[in-house]
Amino acid sequence: MNLTQLLTAADPYAETCTAIRRDFHKYAELAWTEFRTTAKIIDFLKQHGVPVKFGLDLVNPEYTWSYPDEETLVLHKTRAIEQGADEALVSAMAGYTGAMAVIDSGKPGPTYIFRFDIDCNDVDEAADPGHRPFKEGFSSVNEHCMHACGHDGHAAMGMVLAAVLHENRELLTGKVKVIFQPGEEGDKGAQAIVERGVLDDGDVVMGMHIFGTEGLYPGLCGTIKGLYATTKFDIAFTGDNSHAGAAPEDGKNAILAAAMAIGGMNSFLQDGRGSSRLNIGTINGGTGRNVVAKNCVLRAETRGSDTAVEQRLYKAAVRCVKAAADAFECESDIRIMGSCPTGNGDDALAELIIQASEAVDVLKDRKLVLINTGGTDDFAYMMRRLQERGKPACYMALLTKIAAGHHNSRFDFDECCLIAGVKACLAALVRLMEQASREKSEEETVQ
Amino acid sequence: MNLTQLLTAADPYAETCTAIRRDFHKYAELAWTEFRTTAKIIDFLKQHGVPVKFGLDLVNPEYTWSYPDEETLVLHKTRAIEQGADEALVSAMAGYTGAMAVIDSGKPGPTYIFRFDIDCNDVDEAADPGHRPFKEGFSSVNEHCMHACGHDGHAAMGMVLAAVLHENRELLTGKVKVIFQPGEEGDKGAQAIVERGVLDDGDVVMGMHIFGTEGLYPGLCGTIKGLYATTKFDIAFTGDNSHAGAAPEDGKNAILAAAMAIGGMNSFLQDGRGSSRLNIGTINGGTGRNVVAKNCVLRAETRGSDTAVEQRLYKAAVRCVKAAADAFECESDIRIMGSCPTGNGDDALAELIIQASEAVDVLKDRKLVLINTGGTDDFAYMMRRLQERGKPACYMALLTKIAAGHHNSRFDFDECCLIAGVKACLAALVRLMEQASREKSEEETVQ
Amino acid sequence: MNLTQLLTAADPYAETCTAIRRDFHKYAELAWTEFRTTAKIIDFLKQHGVPVKFGLDLVNPEYTWSYPDEETLVLHKTRAIEQGADEALVSAMAGYTGAMAVIDSGKPGPTYIFRFDIDCNDVDEAADPGHRPFKEGFSSVNEHCMHACGHDGHAAMGMVLAAVLHENRELLTGKVKVIFQPGEEGDKGAQAIVERGVLDDGDVVMGMHIFGTEGLYPGLCGTIKGLYATTKFDIAFTGDNSHAGAAPEDGKNAILAAAMAIGGMNSFLQDGRGSSRLNIGTINGGTGRNVVAKNCVLRAETRGSDTAVEQRLYKAAVRCVKAAADAFECESDIRIMGSCPTGNGDDALAELIIQASEAVDVLKDRKLVLINTGGTDDFAYMMRRLQERGKPACYMALLTKIAAGHHNSRFDFDECCLIAGVKACLAALVRLMEQASREKSEEETVQ
Amino acid sequence: MNLTQLLTAADPYAETCTAIRRDFHKYAELAWTEFRTTAKIIDFLKQHGVPVKFGLDLVNPEYTWSYPDEETLVLHKTRAIEQGADEALVSAMAGYTGAMAVIDSGKPGPTYIFRFDIDCNDVDEAADPGHRPFKEGFSSVNEHCMHACGHDGHAAMGMVLAAVLHENRELLTGKVKVIFQPGEEGDKGAQAIVERGVLDDGDVVMGMHIFGTEGLYPGLCGTIKGLYATTKFDIAFTGDNSHAGAAPEDGKNAILAAAMAIGGMNSFLQDGRGSSRLNIGTINGGTGRNVVAKNCVLRAETRGSDTAVEQRLYKAAVRCVKAAADAFECESDIRIMGSCPTGNGDDALAELIIQASEAVDVLKDRKLVLINTGGTDDFAYMMRRLQERGKPACYMALLTKIAAGHHNSRFDFDECCLIAGVKACLAALVRLMEQASREKSEEETVQ
Repeated sequence: MNLTQLLTAADPYAETCTAIRRDFHKYAELAWTEFRTTAKIIDFLKQHGVPVKFGLDLVNPEYTWSYPDEETLVLHKTRAIEQGADEALVSAMAGYTGAMAVIDSGKPGPTYIFRFDIDCNDVDEAADPGHRPFKEGFSSVNEHCMHACGHDGHAAMGMVLAAVLHENRELLTGKVKVIFQPGEEGDKGAQAIVERGVLDDGDVVMGMHIFGTEGLYPGLCGTIKGLYATTKFDIAFTGDNSHAGAAPEDGKNAILAAAMAIGGMNSFLQDGRGSSRLNIGTINGGTGRNVVAKNCVLRAETRGSDTAVEQRLYKAAVRCVKAAADAFECESDIRIMGSCPTGNGDDALAELIIQASEAVDVLKDRKLVLINTGGTDDFAYMMRRLQERGKPACYMALLTKIAAGHHNSRFDFDECCLIAGVKACLAALVRLMEQASREKSEEETVQ
Repeated sequence: MNLTQLLTAADPYAETCTAIRRDFHKYAELAWTEFRTTAKIIDFLKQHGVPVKFGLDLVNPEYTWSYPDEETLVLHKTRAIEQGADEALVSAMAGYTGAMAVIDSGKPGPTYIFRFDIDCNDVDEAADPGHRPFKEGFSSVNEHCMHACGHDGHAAMGMVLAAVLHENRELLTGKVKVIFQPGEEGDKGAQAIVERGVLDDGDVVMGMHIFGTEGLYPGLCGTIKGLYATTKFDIAFTGDNSHAGAAPEDGKNAILAAAMAIGGMNSFLQDGRGSSRLNIGTINGGTGRNVVAKNCVLRAETRGSDTAVEQRLYKAAVRCVKAAADAFECESDIRIMGSCPTGNGDDALAELIIQASEAVDVLKDRKLVLINTGGTDDFAYMMRRLQERGKPACYMALLTKIAAGHHNSRFDFDECCLIAGVKACLAALVRLMEQASREKSEEETVQ
Repeated sequence: MNLTQLLTAADPYAETCTAIRRDFHKYAELAWTEFRTTAKIIDFLKQHGVPVKFGLDLVNPEYTWSYPDEETLVLHKTRAIEQGADEALVSAMAGYTGAMAVIDSGKPGPTYIFRFDIDCNDVDEAADPGHRPFKEGFSSVNEHCMHACGHDGHAAMGMVLAAVLHENRELLTGKVKVIFQPGEEGDKGAQAIVERGVLDDGDVVMGMHIFGTEGLYPGLCGTIKGLYATTKFDIAFTGDNSHAGAAPEDGKNAILAAAMAIGGMNSFLQDGRGSSRLNIGTINGGTGRNVVAKNCVLRAETRGSDTAVEQRLYKAAVRCVKAAADAFECESDIRIMGSCPTGNGDDALAELIIQASEAVDVLKDRKLVLINTGGTDDFAYMMRRLQERGKPACYMALLTKIAAGHHNSRFDFDECCLIAGVKACLAALVRLMEQASREKSEEETVQ
Repeated sequence: MNLTQLLTAADPYAETCTAIRRDFHKYAELAWTEFRTTAKIIDFLKQHGVPVKFGLDLVNPEYTWSYPDEETLVLHKTRAIEQGADEALVSAMAGYTGAMAVIDSGKPGPTYIFRFDIDCNDVDEAADPGHRPFKEGFSSVNEHCMHACGHDGHAAMGMVLAAVLHENRELLTGKVKVIFQPGEEGDKGAQAIVERGVLDDGDVVMGMHIFGTEGLYPGLCGTIKGLYATTKFDIAFTGDNSHAGAAPEDGKNAILAAAMAIGGMNSFLQDGRGSSRLNIGTINGGTGRNVVAKNCVLRAETRGSDTAVEQRLYKAAVRCVKAAADAFECESDIRIMGSCPTGNGDDALAELIIQASEAVDVLKDRKLVLINTGGTDDFAYMMRRLQERGKPACYMALLTKIAAGHHNSRFDFDECCLIAGVKACLAALVRLMEQASREKSEEETVQ
């Protein structure tokens, strides 16, 4: 297969990558409200003739964690259209963001899946001239919405990757799916796509995430390992008001129930099988100083280096919530807002990817084998779905220079990495196709 | 002394009482922002020729609990002027609301003090036709501001009382002070007036509060007893943020500190000397699910049937806050937002008031001796100041029909009580003046 | 009726009272193990010809709180016999201590019930010459057993009272029951007697307890009021051991469950209806430093000035225990070890008793009307049983000089009060009988 | 050097090893009371002419964690003498158990240090015929004392090693120290020896511990790694008693303080740098159900995969204890009962040991390179002391068959490992001496 031809075909898209990224950066959208982003992706793909699936063809509504209420959806659809989204496309989504390009070579062969995430963070972007997006006029215009994790760049890479592949599909074998996933932040979106079944014919799945490095950029890391399992959950205690001075005995104190639950939960962090985390990130309860509080709401998360460890902790947290509610005669409600299992890429695939990237000029000598993180990414759901069938998965890191840490209001990255990332994907894909064809002929020889 | 003459002089003011009450109801103002209310009171008094003191002549700024910040003050002064307050008067207040009428008979005799409170509650008034103030167009136009405790009526009675007394001052002996106190809700205003010294020449102090009864109205209760001591306080824990997954050890968790403190505080409610209360009315902490919370803020109060009991509990709460902050390496800040001691009126004075009220037609056979409450009112500070010098104090209840409980968004009362309340004060005053003159002549006889 | 005759008949028993009290003091016995004490009482009554009931005729085994195990019973029966109890009598008790003398006048009339308690405290008696019982050789020979609450004297009075009444039964009308109750300490014994039904024919019930006063002794107080309701209960958490370093996740931590429960319980002490108490008196858990604790056991009690207040608190404590056990996947067990409701004597009866005691020389001018206590006594069960049927009850205090507080290892009292107490009972009884006969003749006249 | 000669010299001691082990097993002694064990060791060494140091020459009393009180010492010395210890030797120990053999070759060369621990566990040995020590008559005669961790065998090996080395000292170079350490259980004894300075001239330090394996025995593991740091500590809260019903406000509740501290401590188990453990193993507080508890005592431990992680947790626990004591106005006392840092042997030394053991017939093909444990052993102090000076350390595992887990009442091991262990030490030592002599001659050549 002619890798050089493919890489050359990508070159003209370098500026496109940057332009798309900046457009998405400016109109950043949170989980499940990426209506404009999705419309722009679909539009781009269609313009390049790439077949695309979306809406209920991509998303199983039963697994959409933290899915917004109708009012929020309407508001965000309206905003998307005001900010340039095609109204008909928004309507066609049936409420579910995200898209999937499908490039079919028409020749037999495996199905290769790439995943890029497209949502932004709940962060207010820094408004000062030292912050490049602000200075150059592409900082976010949407309040509390900022691409502070590079998903704007991820989406841009996925679009260009799909276009280049489709334009050169006669060079390929098998099929390639490029998934544009909504709601990665808070681990809300991947499971809904997995449970739609679109990965079930996959033979390899690969994801890619921008990572900051000094010097070694643009560069590539073969695999991010050690993704923690996590559950994001909201807890609500509902008791009863009463006058705190006159009739405290008539109240059912939701704040005290919450305090009791919090006290208990921390007792389950010890586990000989692995490391775990619990955080009560926010608490809000009560209405007045002299009123026994009727409501108390917490936002919490558990994490674990091992899914069993994480699930033990989560279940203990649930027990503590129920127990404290019982003790204080309150009602309790626990709602899962996001979740994902642990994730670990396959070593052989990572090795192949690293070797393949040798062919990409700008990545030469800028490679790491492994980044071990305690972070989470719901791409783990996708890896699992393939690994359960014995298929390999890999989560690559795209190395570049960043202006501030991920999720920081001053986050920005050197866009030189974007086209490099596209090429790394192309190189890996060609290598995988070559390997498949080699294996196939060996197989035929044996027979 | 001619009581009949005084009572008759009050009669024409019945409608004035109602009109003032409704005006104040419509333009309800919270503690320390009663600029319009104060201006209207001063204006009325001046129009009736009554000498009046206010601003720094009435309030000692060192004891103004929950005093607002400059921005809030400016906003509320502006609103007051827009709603009809005299700008020069607002300016003359020097930032401190409240007023005191001083009626001097020019004859020797004791100084009699009355107190009426003027602030509203932090409640949104019910907006439905079944609620009379709404239906009749005098419900509050100020958001989160509603007279749901009758202070609008209290202020009206005080104004009319002062006017009638001044007009008939030749019938009196000694001096009468009528205090219009800001910030009774949350026990914020009384101490500042007490500590200005304006009660230090007082020989009797009386307060009056509207109470709901069925049937027995308009009526009078000789004394409200058993006022609890209380401290209203805000607690702030300040720790440090960190990423809950990556570096939990770098965080200093303000939410966990708060939970520990809350757990501890409840352990000090047992006291063989009396009854006590503790309430954590509100809690708000943290910013994001996956961030170790840097801040957590609580609004709390303690109460006690005995000042020592309340103070033991408050001090224990302070210890728990400091201890929890120490444990979690957080800073803690406790700010007193209001406070008052226990209060109990004097029985002999209550008896005299009840007997004197026989002279008021509408109050005949509509009298209670005593209401025992576990509530709080910072009028207790004023009672204490006199009782410490061996002088009597009394907190009367003015009985009327109410539409809903105090502090309820549908609170309203039958205004027939207002002129009855004025007359009860006049009757008590005449009886006290007669008693003083009798004691004086007995004294002279003895000598 | 000839009261003088009765009082004179009591005189020779003054020394007997003291002798019995000292004998019981020396051989002090705890709740449900008063085998020697009971045997001595029965023996004395039989020698004086007084009919007596005991064992299952007095006690309903279903309500015997804190009843000991078989081994303990055997040990204490053996000790009782060694210390002089009649073996046949001990055997006849069928395991249940306590006795009731029944004096029947043979004439119609009401049934009068007296109750005296007979058990000692779990205290080691002071062994120093400054302590009179030690110096004079009658301090307790039984380890951890000491009459530090005066029940030795109570039992002595009850025995003499029964003997005098029986000897002079021709002077009486109606019937008198004198109950010797086991297990008052910890509120273990009264309910079992009440639930046997022996108070169901009673028309008046009276109890008597020694109280310390300076000067006013021997003396009498008409009634002890304000007895608190209480529940004494043991809590056991059972989890699972594991190695705290290697496999903390395999343990179910009973100590942490206990700590969580304790934290919760204290949150239910506020009640607008009355005062309450909660105490976790003891806690014992765990076996080794590096082992997750499997067991944790607590001894607790709740009290309340109102039975509803106490029961709300007790139920909340139960909920907290269950909740904490759920949270930590432990089993929990709560066992009631004693209990009693609130108790308040009747004023008219107290007044009658006080007036009647005028006839007793040594009590002249040594009377109080009322002692208001926050203590508990399961005599409250007996008072309730009569009051439920509209019959009066009274709990008198017998005033004397004490050497140290109740339950103190140096407790002792001036025995001059004992014969005075007997006489006060006689005087009250005669007055009651006179009143009954007066009422009866009035009734007959009316008819 | 003639290794064969040394190994052959060890052969006759095989039965000695077993005999000593069983003698020590029968007379098991706990930390700091190993008077008989120490006396027997010294006696044996002296009989074999081996120079020996002990008492204050070996132990620095300032670092003796959990050192017993005088009464306990006297009791155990007496028992030791009754059980065959030489009275003069016991007296010469000056209260400090443990011993150190010093074998000096008289030739220049490094100092090699071996450490064997000698104390038993606080366990009651199983008394049933299925347990070999019981069946064969050498189970422990000392209550609550059992060698359930193999230290009886360790001591035996150390004695034989010292004897063989001393008899063959002309084959050696440099010096060998064999330390018999008291109080390894609970990490009580090592630091006191380290702080006496006797390891300060060491060039290599090696320890050895029996480990159970199936099949691979007798065998050797080159190194045990991943020893956790730990602190063992006792916590005492001291408050004040009061009557829980009458005057709860006078009490200072030590049980509630303990519960608050426990609640807080568990909040510090999350650390991105490593794994940690906290256990409150035991809690005992209070004296009576109706008494506010004055005392509450806890036995606790912290552990960490990293010393900094463990120390952060320990310090947080200390803060929580102090904070809770402050909140409840109690005194708190924390006493360290044992401690050790993390420990990791050096890989090169482990490799050398494994290779050297090839020369020992019975160990052929029965070798592991590494056991990774989360356990603790205060041998870590000794390793650290050398590693700080750049010297290597190694903690070998001696593989054998065990009847039940360590610290179990049915623990026993196949004694065939003992002479194998001695020979492994000899082989390692010869290899080290050869290496030293090689390095020395290379050094001389270079110069």
